[in-house]
Formats: sequence, structure tokens, C-alpha cells
Amino acid sequence: MSESPVRRFLPADGDYRWDAVELLRYKDEGAAPFRDVTRQTLFRRADMRGELRYFEVAANGHSTLERHEHAHAVLILRGGGEVLVGAAVFAINAFDLVTVPPSTWHQFRASADAPLGFLCMVDADRDKPQLPDASDRERLRESPAAAAFLAATRR
Amino acid sequence: MSESPVRRFLPADGDYRWDAVELLRYKDEGAAPFRDVTRQTLFRRADMRGELRYFEVAANGHSTLERHEHAHAVLILRGGGEVLVGAAVFAINAFDLVTVPPSTWHQFRASADAPLGFLCMVDADRDKPQLPDASDRERLRESPAAAAFLAATRR
Repeated sequence: MSESPVRRFLPADGDYRWDAVELLRYKDEGAAPFRDVTRQTLFRRADMRGELRYFEVAANGHSTLERHEHAHAVLILRGGGEVLVGAAVFAINAFDLVTVPPSTWHQFRASADAPLGFLCMVDADRDKPQLPDASDRERLRESPAAAAFLAATRR
Repeated sequence: MSESPVRRFLPADGDYRWDAVELLRYKDEGAAPFRDVTRQTLFRRADMRGELRYFEVAANGHSTLERHEHAHAVLILRGGGEVLVGAAVFAINAFDLVTVPPSTWHQFRASADAPLGFLCMVDADRDKPQLPDASDRERLRESPAAAAFLAATRR
């Protein structure tokens, strides 16, 4: 076995980190709009069909507004904030569960005072995200909750 | 959508529980030896190929000693204890990651003073666990660490 069965939780400077887990950019710079997000792949194995990742959004930061055919299964690990799922907005706090169904616009935003960290299970075999165009954004804004959420997202 | 995208974390009487998540027996009574374990399926969807479950082992309790062809990807969510993986034993604490490779004997045991709660990602499509027979146990006990772990497991 090339890797120990146990990899330690080793928080560093207030960030959630693990032994032998690389801290990655959330996405390549410029590929999609986001703010202050990191990504760590906790489990990805050739013999498993799911993957488990950890994302950390700095205070006031946000993930990309996107959708895709694959679903997300999310468990909030630290902090809180809000999530947009389709046309609805929900407050989220530590250990809450968030399901993002297929082909559903979604975006996570951290509260102003603390980082938002969450686990996200996805299929290893999955499609790439799509970004909204102007008409997609217009349709989303027909929901007052979604409009308020999008207006509050700092670029 | 039949279910809200967000299901709240609602701990009850010191146990980790979630809105709309059923608390289940770990296994059917008598099917396999274990002690004081509950199981909650946090995410199981027809359109995802992984599942995420939460297990809680009461203080001093333990999961079944077993192996199977599918792998486990575990994140400790609360408490601590020890885990046997193959012939090796590791201390585990909150947020540590544990990989159980295919066809590897494994057992989780909670410390004496607090429950051990962990997330476990598995493939939705997976084989059933096997229990050790006398010769499997004998082989495991060739490792002093495994022998000490098994001796300390209360029945």
C-alpha cells in the first residue's frame, strides 16, 4: 500500500488541511467567476465510483454559479452562509446537508464573518459545469430570493 | 422536488441527527457481532453512484469485524477511538481520513469516554461483507497490534 490508511486532520493557520492532501485552486483562474475558494480531494480512487472533496470558501467569498447534469451531495463541515439551489435560497450551517439535483443552478456563499467549509460527494465520472448566460441570469432573477442572492454576491 | 434541498442538522440527546434522515440499526440484530452502533443514510440517490452514510458508535462500542470487495472512504466526524485496517491499528480523531482498501479486514472502536461518529462513502453497487472464521482470526492475531486490538474489543 503506497499510502497510509489514515491521513491526519492537520489544520493550519485556521484552514482545514489533511496530511498528504494537496491544496488546490478551486478552478483555473479566469475559467469562471468565483472568489476565495480552495479545493482538496479527500478521496478519489480507481476502485470507487464516488469522489469526496472538501471546499473552503473564505468569509464573504463564493463558489461559481453553475449547473451540470451530475448531482452534488454536500455536508457543511464548518461555518455558515447561504446556498442558491435552483430559484430558492437557504441559510446553511455546520453539518447541514445540501442536495443539488441534476441540471440545477447553484452557488455557495460564505457568511461575512467566517469561512464556509463543505464536503461534496460527486460521481467520479461526470460532466463539466455550464455557466449561465444573460438570459439564464434573467430567468433566475424572476425569483426575488435568487435576485437578492445574486445581487449580494461580490464579484 | 419531493424533498427540500437542505436538510438541517438537528442533534438530539447528544446524538447527531438530521431532518428527514431515519435512524437505523447498524445491522439486523444477530446478523453479525457489533455493539452500540447506529446508521443513517445521508445521501443515496438513483442518479449518484456513491452513497454517504453516518455511523455512530457509542463509547466503548465497536463496528463489526468484516471485509468485502468494495472500499470504504471514511471521515471521522466526532469523537475518537481506534481502527483496525488489515493487520495495523491506528488512533483516530475528529476529521481524520480513513481508507479501507478492498478485501481488507477492518473494525472501528470508540474510545471509552465519547461516541465515535464517522461518515462513510461507498459505492451504491457493492458486495456484502464477509465475517472472519476462526482461521481468519488466527491469521489476524499474528500481528501483535491486531491481537491487542481484538482482545480489547468487548463482545
